[in-house]
Amino acid sequence: MGKLITMLFLLLYLGIHGTLRSQDQDISKMHNPAKEIIVDGLSRPWSMAFLSEEEVLLSEKDGDLLFINIHTKEKRPIKGFPQDRFDTLLYVKENFKPLTFPASLPDSTKVTFNAGILEVVLDPDFKNNRQVYMSYVARGEGGTTTKVIRAELRNDSLTQIRPLFVATPFSEGLFHYGGGITFGPDGKLYITVGERVFNELDEPALPVAQDVTDRRGKIYRLNPDGSIPDDNPDFGPDAVPGIYALGIRAAQGITLQPNTGKIWFSEHGTRQGDEINILRPGNNYGWPVVTSGGYRSSEYQPPTIEGVEFANPVWYWLQTVAPTGLCFYTGNEFPSWKNNLIVPGLSRGSLWRVRVEGETVKSMEELFVDDRERSRKAVMSPKGKLYILTEDLENRTNGKIVRIKPE
Amino acid sequence: MGKLITMLFLLLYLGIHGTLRSQDQDISKMHNPAKEIIVDGLSRPWSMAFLSEEEVLLSEKDGDLLFINIHTKEKRPIKGFPQDRFDTLLYVKENFKPLTFPASLPDSTKVTFNAGILEVVLDPDFKNNRQVYMSYVARGEGGTTTKVIRAELRNDSLTQIRPLFVATPFSEGLFHYGGGITFGPDGKLYITVGERVFNELDEPALPVAQDVTDRRGKIYRLNPDGSIPDDNPDFGPDAVPGIYALGIRAAQGITLQPNTGKIWFSEHGTRQGDEINILRPGNNYGWPVVTSGGYRSSEYQPPTIEGVEFANPVWYWLQTVAPTGLCFYTGNEFPSWKNNLIVPGLSRGSLWRVRVEGETVKSMEELFVDDRERSRKAVMSPKGKLYILTEDLENRTNGKIVRIKPE
Repeated sequence: MGKLITMLFLLLYLGIHGTLRSQDQDISKMHNPAKEIIVDGLSRPWSMAFLSEEEVLLSEKDGDLLFINIHTKEKRPIKGFPQDRFDTLLYVKENFKPLTFPASLPDSTKVTFNAGILEVVLDPDFKNNRQVYMSYVARGEGGTTTKVIRAELRNDSLTQIRPLFVATPFSEGLFHYGGGITFGPDGKLYITVGERVFNELDEPALPVAQDVTDRRGKIYRLNPDGSIPDDNPDFGPDAVPGIYALGIRAAQGITLQPNTGKIWFSEHGTRQGDEINILRPGNNYGWPVVTSGGYRSSEYQPPTIEGVEFANPVWYWLQTVAPTGLCFYTGNEFPSWKNNLIVPGLSRGSLWRVRVEGETVKSMEELFVDDRERSRKAVMSPKGKLYILTEDLENRTNGKIVRIKPE
Repeated sequence: MGKLITMLFLLLYLGIHGTLRSQDQDISKMHNPAKEIIVDGLSRPWSMAFLSEEEVLLSEKDGDLLFINIHTKEKRPIKGFPQDRFDTLLYVKENFKPLTFPASLPDSTKVTFNAGILEVVLDPDFKNNRQVYMSYVARGEGGTTTKVIRAELRNDSLTQIRPLFVATPFSEGLFHYGGGITFGPDGKLYITVGERVFNELDEPALPVAQDVTDRRGKIYRLNPDGSIPDDNPDFGPDAVPGIYALGIRAAQGITLQPNTGKIWFSEHGTRQGDEINILRPGNNYGWPVVTSGGYRSSEYQPPTIEGVEFANPVWYWLQTVAPTGLCFYTGNEFPSWKNNLIVPGLSRGSLWRVRVEGETVKSMEELFVDDRERSRKAVMSPKGKLYILTEDLENRTNGKIVRIKPE
């Protein structure tokens, strides 16, 4: 009898509320994102540049620079990529290790696999000059480092390749290259270079990222031809050319905020300490002297550096996110996302929508928490559609171009 | 010269994009939440029930049951609250300790201050029967416990007070009372009771929350008069009356999902392990045998309990949130929030918007990350306005009713 009454109550209740329900859901669905797989089977996609609304250049970290038509799905490699590139596949091949990355390899080995082709960015005047800017991990004497080139794209080939920047010295270990590139509102190239130190106990007395005579652990500002702008900040006579900011650990994502002309970048911490920062000339972002997270070794005591003001991040997470290729949402499909920052994360596979007002983060939304993929890059198409590059969470295979659209 | 060119580029850039900017912001502001302080100076507000769109009953944990007109700001205490109530102020007074909570008190003392008046809920037929349901911390022989009463509200007084439930035994320590109450779609009362164990090393062999002969650490289902529904799940002949689910550590928030009739509740973990769960008859939520977080002591080894299936949470955080009085957003002011779960958090001061589809969390947004307050309760007004109850993050003073509205 009790059960019967309960059921009648429930039916009555659902009856009253059921009519409202479908209408409510229609309204809210306009704001809910869904994924559409555009292309899959890619080899760890890192970056993507739109040649048109349907044609892209896509860099596979463990693969090729590709031309892809995301409408017809036509895909072909771009020929002529420099032979000094180095990546995980080459590493495994040369070391006669089976390619079972990452599950069966020890942790110390896993983390080294950051090498490969990284960023691909078009010249603002690409239509006329066909110039493409790319970063990748190059091999040289003593190891590898981050290298930036530009080339003309003609008939599916890179031609007239010109090295713009090599973050010497070449060093051991395949981690923390940075490699993010964006054009500023001033027509200059902004480039992130990681510090290439895995354990802080291996830092020299003056840590790499704090040492202006060392190219690693910095952000650079170059003219598109690789020359140094004459209005770069002054780091003294011993500084390597082109430094724009220092104290960088492993920044990958760097992007222009369209409505302000500011440049924002993401930064990987060691233990937590994943950050979002705003780039300013001459800034010191503190690594490893100060961090919003912890160090790999609890024994590490960072040195004190006198008379330096360290820039605070705009945001840091309390959990590990491994934020990467961020971009600002400039589309109209999600009206409430306008001018929000979209931040993909590698760790656990995450995608964040960050509402910013001025330089303040107002709210943080983690999207697709029920459908996690390692997310490397968020890119807006010319017409304002949002795409992300992902790979499977567990085995890092099956790289994809995914469109994020309203349900 | 370089600087001049840079400035011209920047001006040109901002000129082109500036015209778009104000229009973009108008669109997005329709979706951005802002806080409006409605009433402040409250003493740790815990719950609020709407008598009308403008009149509320509000429970102060360290204060009174209050009548407040949120339009005129008129405020007056409701007379007749039972004298067996116990709270922090009484504790401090009786122990001759200065009331400098919490900064100057040791950690072990701080965490004990959960006592006071907790939930206040109106009868669905309040207009006719004037019945109010309240939970509070009552003093008895051997300590304190969670008590639920109902009373008639007449002329600003509680009359005909009737105890519905006392979570005996009374025990030491002023923590983990639970105290959440909601009406189900079946017209029954659902009540959360915490397990009252601060350190898991103090658990008996059969942990409190797993022991059906102990009233603590359970969720109850009662008729509004306190009697036991005859269709409650059967936990055996030794079980205390009224148990609906077990394995509860410190659940405070419990709420009805209007469009499904399901009941959702929040749960505090010890070290992380903060959860959102869906209530089902007979479920065992696992504490302390299984948890999505850690234990207070790393030495604690939970017992194995054979033949029991533990219910998984719908969501758990990787950071400490201390989620409390959640509710579903049923308003129209934020179209994209429709049917989302709003979850206030005490730790660090947080407020979460959780988009759910069925029983799956699709996305998690942390709101007001630049304006943190300890948030205890989210409540929808009859006409669909969202209010939260807060207190200052640092010293837990200046309790407020805050309205969340579009910018």
